[in-house]
Amino acid sequence: MYTASLERMTDKIKTFSQYGDAGHGGITRYSLSPAAIQARNEFIKRMKAIGAEIEIDDVANMYATIPGSDPNAKRIVMASHCDSVRNGGNYDGILGVMSAMEVLETVVEKNIPHKHPLTAMVWTNEEGSLYLPAMMCSGIVCYDYLPDTIKTGFKYEDMMASKSIIDHTTTFGEALDKSGFKGDKKYRLSPDKYECYFETHIEQGPILEDNGNDIGVVDCVLGMFNYTLKFYGRTTHAGTFPMKKRQDAFYAASQALCYLHEKIDALGYDELVYTTGEVECHPNVHTCVPDYYEFSFDCRHEDPKVLDQVLEIVKGCADKEWSGCTCKVEKAWNRDTVYWNKTLVGYVKESCEELGVSHQYIHSGAGHDAQFAAYMLPATMIFVQSKDGLSHCEDEYSSPEHCTEGASVMLNAVLKVDEKGL
Amino acid sequence: MYTASLERMTDKIKTFSQYGDAGHGGITRYSLSPAAIQARNEFIKRMKAIGAEIEIDDVANMYATIPGSDPNAKRIVMASHCDSVRNGGNYDGILGVMSAMEVLETVVEKNIPHKHPLTAMVWTNEEGSLYLPAMMCSGIVCYDYLPDTIKTGFKYEDMMASKSIIDHTTTFGEALDKSGFKGDKKYRLSPDKYECYFETHIEQGPILEDNGNDIGVVDCVLGMFNYTLKFYGRTTHAGTFPMKKRQDAFYAASQALCYLHEKIDALGYDELVYTTGEVECHPNVHTCVPDYYEFSFDCRHEDPKVLDQVLEIVKGCADKEWSGCTCKVEKAWNRDTVYWNKTLVGYVKESCEELGVSHQYIHSGAGHDAQFAAYMLPATMIFVQSKDGLSHCEDEYSSPEHCTEGASVMLNAVLKVDEKGL
Repeated sequence: MYTASLERMTDKIKTFSQYGDAGHGGITRYSLSPAAIQARNEFIKRMKAIGAEIEIDDVANMYATIPGSDPNAKRIVMASHCDSVRNGGNYDGILGVMSAMEVLETVVEKNIPHKHPLTAMVWTNEEGSLYLPAMMCSGIVCYDYLPDTIKTGFKYEDMMASKSIIDHTTTFGEALDKSGFKGDKKYRLSPDKYECYFETHIEQGPILEDNGNDIGVVDCVLGMFNYTLKFYGRTTHAGTFPMKKRQDAFYAASQALCYLHEKIDALGYDELVYTTGEVECHPNVHTCVPDYYEFSFDCRHEDPKVLDQVLEIVKGCADKEWSGCTCKVEKAWNRDTVYWNKTLVGYVKESCEELGVSHQYIHSGAGHDAQFAAYMLPATMIFVQSKDGLSHCEDEYSSPEHCTEGASVMLNAVLKVDEKGL
Repeated sequence: MYTASLERMTDKIKTFSQYGDAGHGGITRYSLSPAAIQARNEFIKRMKAIGAEIEIDDVANMYATIPGSDPNAKRIVMASHCDSVRNGGNYDGILGVMSAMEVLETVVEKNIPHKHPLTAMVWTNEEGSLYLPAMMCSGIVCYDYLPDTIKTGFKYEDMMASKSIIDHTTTFGEALDKSGFKGDKKYRLSPDKYECYFETHIEQGPILEDNGNDIGVVDCVLGMFNYTLKFYGRTTHAGTFPMKKRQDAFYAASQALCYLHEKIDALGYDELVYTTGEVECHPNVHTCVPDYYEFSFDCRHEDPKVLDQVLEIVKGCADKEWSGCTCKVEKAWNRDTVYWNKTLVGYVKESCEELGVSHQYIHSGAGHDAQFAAYMLPATMIFVQSKDGLSHCEDEYSSPEHCTEGASVMLNAVLKVDEKGL
C-alpha cells in the first residue's frame, strides 16, 4: 500500500485557497475568471514540475499526463473542477483536482511502477455559477454518450452563447476565447484514449461524519426530478378586500407545501430528500394580495419507484383548489440514477480496507461531472468527510488528514485497475 | 338638489385616461412624470376656463379656487391625486380630482349660490410609486398636525432626498425642481384658510358592488399594523442533506402562515383583513435549502382591541420553533383608526338620501391623503363603487354614472357645509 503526503496536500490546500480568496475563509472563483486562471496556472506549474505532459481541449478542460510502462495501455483519468460558487468553500471541486495531482506526485516521487499513463484532469465550469448550466463542459465532451433527455441541455452552440449572469452580455464562448485556455478538440476525454475515470469529492452532507467514517465509497448518483409548482390567485388590495373573497397565491402555496411534507413524509423513506429552494412571488408588495406564487420542487432517491410515488403526490397538487387558487405542476427536468462501475467501486472499497481507513457505502445526492463521464467510461467516485455536512458556503471544511486519506484511497484504487484491469 | 353632468364627467374620464396610457386599458402616471404634467396642465386649463384662481405650493400641490359670496368665509377643499401606480387604472386618485373639478364646474355652470370659496385640489405623489413614501406631500403639508409616530416618516429633508426606485439616483427634490410645478409654501393647505376637507375615491374593494350600493359613506380609515416575520434556518445542499437534519426557512414560514390563518380566522371577526404580500427567500436557489425567509404581515381593523388580539397571535410565532428554525417578529409601523368628522359624514349621508342614491356606511381599508388632512381639518371621504373590487390594476373600473353620482353627492354635501356650517 502507498500513501499520499499530508504535508504536500496541506500545502496545496493552502495555496489553492488563495486564488479567489473572498476574505472570510472561502473563495469566489467563477470559471475562467482571473482567480480560476491563477488556479489553472498553479495546476500546470506543479504538474510540469513532475514531468507531466499538459493538454488542453477546445473547452479549456486540462489534462496532465505521466506515462506508464505499457505503450499500448489507455490512460486512467482522475478529474474534478477548480471553479466555485459565489462565496463557496476551499474544497468543493478543487479537492478532486488536488487529489489527482497528489496521486501523480506520489507515483513520481515514490517511483511507483504502473503500466497505464495516469492523467490528472480539470473540468471547465462545473458549477455554472457565472455561465449556466452546471457541468457544462463535461456535458459538451460527453455529449454523444448522454441520454437524449439530458443532451438537449448541452448543445455546443447553446453553451457558447450562454450569457454571464452578472453582466448579461459576455457569453461563455467569448470568455473562453479571451481566457487563453482554448485548446484543441483532439485532446478531449474519449474512450479511445482513456480506460476509466475516478473523481474524489467532498461529501457535501453529514452522513460520514455522523457515522464516524472518513471516506465514502460512492455507489451511485441519485436519480432526481425537478418540477415547478405554480399557484394562480388574484391581486387585491390589502385593506379593502374581504378575507373570504381572497385568492392568495402565497397562502395557497404554503398550504400545498405543508400538505406535501405531510404526504411525502408519511411514505417513510429515510433516504429520500426533497427541496423547495427557489420561490417567486408576484407582485410581492406588502399592500397587495399575491396573485402568483411558484416554488421549485427537487426530489432525489436511488429507486425510480420511490421517485414515482413522490411525483404522484406532487402532481396531485394540480387537482386540488388551494384557498381559491389553481395550481399547475410543470416538469423542469429529471435524471435516472447513475450507478458507478462495480469493479471500480470494489477497488475503492478494498483500498479503504487495506489502508485501514474508516469508510462506508454512500450515494451521491449532488450531481458531478463524473455522472456524465460515466456514460462514456467506467467511472466511480470517492467522498471525503465534510465537517457538519456544509458545502457551497465559506464554512465548508474537510481536514487535511481526511483529504490526504482520500488521495491515498484513490491512488491505491488506481493501482488496482492498473494491475488487475476492469 | 343639484346634480353633476354625466356628459362632462365622461369627457374628463376619457381625457385624463390618455395621460400615461399604457396601451392596454390602464395608465402608468408616476408623480411629476411627463404624463402627470399633462394631467396637471389639463386640470389647470379646465379650472382656468371656469375662472378659478390657480395656486401651487412648494411641493407642487395645486389648488384651483372659485370665490364665495362671504369675503370672510374660509375655503372648502375637495382633493385627491393624479399620480398612479405602475400599470394602474383610470380611477384611483384622479376620480377625486375630476369629482372636485366637476363640483366647481357645476357650481359655475348653474350659478349655484354659495358663501365659501370652493377649492379643487391635487396632491403630489400620493402613491409613492416612483418616490417613496406613499402620501408624501400630504405628509409634508400636514406634518405639524400628525401624531409623533407618523410624522417621523415625513421629514421634509428626507422627502426631498427620496430617490427614484427606477434609476436610484434622481431625488424627489430634483424632480420637483425640474417639474416647473414648485410653487410657494404660503399656498399650502392650512386651517387658517380652509374650513374643511372632502375626498372622493373609488372603493378599491367589492363591498358596495356586492351589496348593490353605488356610493359609500365613509366613516373612518381603518387602524393597522405592519410587521415582518423572519425565519432563520440553515442552507444545506438539496441532494446531500438528510431531511430530518434540515432547518428549512421556507417550510418554517409556510407552517407559520397556516398557523396564523387558523388562529386568526378562529377569532371570528368578519371585517378583519390581514395580508402577507411581500416575501424574501435566501439564497433562493433550487438546489439549496433556504436559510432565511421573511414575509410581511399587514393587518387592518377599526377596533384597536381586535388589532391587539391579532398582534398577540403574530408575536407568539417568535416563541415557537418551526421545523428547527427560529422566528423573529419585527414591527414596521402602525397607525390608529382615523375617524371622519361626524357632521361631514352626516351631510354626505343626507345628500345620498336626498339624491336617491343607493348607499351604505363603509370603512376605508386603504390609506388616503384625507387621513393626514384629518389631523389638520374636519375631513371626510366618499366612495364610488369599484367593479369586482379591483384597483391598482388596469382592469380598475367605475361606471361614468357612478362617478357622476359621487360628484353629485360631494356637491350637495359641500353646499350643506356652506349653508349650515360644521
